[in-house]
Amino acid sequence: MSKVRVHCFTISADGYGAGPDQSLENPLGVGGEKLHTWLVSTRSWQSVHGQSAGSTGVDDDFVKRAEVNIGANIIGRNMFTPSRGPWPNDDWIGWWGPNPPYHTPVFVLTHHQRSPLKMEGGTEFIFLSDIHRALAEAKAAAGGKDIRIIGGVSTVRQYLQARLIDELHFAISPVLLGSGEHLLYGIDLPSLGYDVAEHVATRDATHIVLH
Amino acid sequence: MSKVRVHCFTISADGYGAGPDQSLENPLGVGGEKLHTWLVSTRSWQSVHGQSAGSTGVDDDFVKRAEVNIGANIIGRNMFTPSRGPWPNDDWIGWWGPNPPYHTPVFVLTHHQRSPLKMEGGTEFIFLSDIHRALAEAKAAAGGKDIRIIGGVSTVRQYLQARLIDELHFAISPVLLGSGEHLLYGIDLPSLGYDVAEHVATRDATHIVLH
Repeated sequence: MSKVRVHCFTISADGYGAGPDQSLENPLGVGGEKLHTWLVSTRSWQSVHGQSAGSTGVDDDFVKRAEVNIGANIIGRNMFTPSRGPWPNDDWIGWWGPNPPYHTPVFVLTHHQRSPLKMEGGTEFIFLSDIHRALAEAKAAAGGKDIRIIGGVSTVRQYLQARLIDELHFAISPVLLGSGEHLLYGIDLPSLGYDVAEHVATRDATHIVLH
Repeated sequence: MSKVRVHCFTISADGYGAGPDQSLENPLGVGGEKLHTWLVSTRSWQSVHGQSAGSTGVDDDFVKRAEVNIGANIIGRNMFTPSRGPWPNDDWIGWWGPNPPYHTPVFVLTHHQRSPLKMEGGTEFIFLSDIHRALAEAKAAAGGKDIRIIGGVSTVRQYLQARLIDELHFAISPVLLGSGEHLLYGIDLPSLGYDVAEHVATRDATHIVLH
């Protein structure tokens, strides 16, 4: 059976997955970039971004796992664009240039209609407003492979609360954000049936996997 | 200058310092005991509780630090007793028996008056309603040593929000509680001037020290 997975979702030690005041300059909000020290230093991340350096080991292994057997992706609109509300036009094609690193259909959750957007390398952005319909279409498109929910915070929270995520890997970074979007507050994970399946810590991150 | 310190304050991966439904049977709320795997397995904890076993290393070092140069302690009433509201009588003398492991004055925050309670071994419980007055009296009683705020969640939050804590060590355990008392939600630590001064992770806990 195809699974719904979240990988490498990073929160601060005080629980925020994004800082306040997201913008073009600060797509993860003010201070949000510092969440990802553990991630950007891995060999897998570096190689996706055209570099040959980077660390191997536990952190890197988690980045690798995120790429295995993914047939479709789901993201929130705020991960696709810094704009809010109705689309000003169709000019914005995402943060990633003409060949995004997804190479699958990517369902973008938005209340504002937009035509699908075919990119190079097999990525197609498809815009939908309903989390259930997006997941159904993602499953249909994934050809038996798994669905990855990439983020952001609000998207992961909605799927968690609906108990539609089978595996959630999050990483706690030893930084503070203080405000912004809190990943887990108000979500009673044990009541939803989640438990800690794996945990391991490195210098830069504490990795928790929930099933 | 005497410092105000918090040590070994343990929260779940979802941020709770105590589970729901605290009671005589579950002083840390339902599921709360499982927070402290890292703590109770240390040699320092074991030796305070009359055992000779236990681990040494990073976790143990944090337990040791908690005991250094403490002249007075502050705790919330819920850490002293499972009862709530007006004292039914003076029979309850705390969880710890006739010789509590504090050996200093311990200021207990409560809105309900009660006479001081002298215990064996130098511990005296003194009951006060105001966090500022409790801290002032603790400083006066500490003879130049530091003040330790032991907990619980509400007490630490009040002192954090008043920016009266100089050093906060908390440990994140790889467990979920789902509800109960959240330590940090709604407290903007960077705005209060706090930053991560130290971080180190072990198998059972991720330790963060804020200054």
